[in-house]
Amino acid sequence: MDKVNLAEKLSLIQERWNPRIVGELNGQHVKLVKFQGEFVWHSHAHEDELFLVLAGSFVMEFRDESVTLNQGDFLIVPRGVEHRPVAEEEVSVMLFEPAGILHTGGVESELTVREYQRI
Amino acid sequence: MDKVNLAEKLSLIQERWNPRIVGELNGQHVKLVKFQGEFVWHSHAHEDELFLVLAGSFVMEFRDESVTLNQGDFLIVPRGVEHRPVAEEEVSVMLFEPAGILHTGGVESELTVREYQRI
Repeated sequence: MDKVNLAEKLSLIQERWNPRIVGELNGQHVKLVKFQGEFVWHSHAHEDELFLVLAGSFVMEFRDESVTLNQGDFLIVPRGVEHRPVAEEEVSVMLFEPAGILHTGGVESELTVREYQRI
Repeated sequence: MDKVNLAEKLSLIQERWNPRIVGELNGQHVKLVKFQGEFVWHSHAHEDELFLVLAGSFVMEFRDESVTLNQGDFLIVPRGVEHRPVAEEEVSVMLFEPAGILHTGGVESELTVREYQRI
């Protein structure tokens, strides 16, 4: 029965915008990701997505509002809702979402990663 | 689109061993719980369960080993595996598990809570 330490796993991540799988349960993945800058506008047709800030802060932009997330804040983006994460400085985030979700949703981008690595 | 601050929600919890729902997505609940002492031995026939320590530490006992979890550690207990959380001092934990799960699994106890309150 192996525990996972979040700081230890985060220290293994250098690449930005590339979520890594750190846990799996009930068909859901727990992922860690670091990012800075602007992501692409996208939505997920069938998946709700949770973002929990572990270090730093970022803004989740929606078409009609923006929500600033600081360390210890989480936000659930419901399926079908267009969103775009934007971070002025690097932020470390934990994701909870169904296994098989594509982080750019229905949008093809140079940032799109199709295979998420386990760390 | 409402964000949730973990520290703020934790400050609302006085009662121990009573998980509160703070988020729902993809048929799963995000819960917060505080506890101290020994829980009951139990297992969940159909649900995997994630425990993430937000403050303090505790020991997850299994029939053949024990795992100590400190702040920033998480552990996924697979369905069907008997376990018992034990905390010498009060600990604050985030749970991620399917909606409808009973925290005492298939075991009836004076600690069993049947309706989890949203905060």
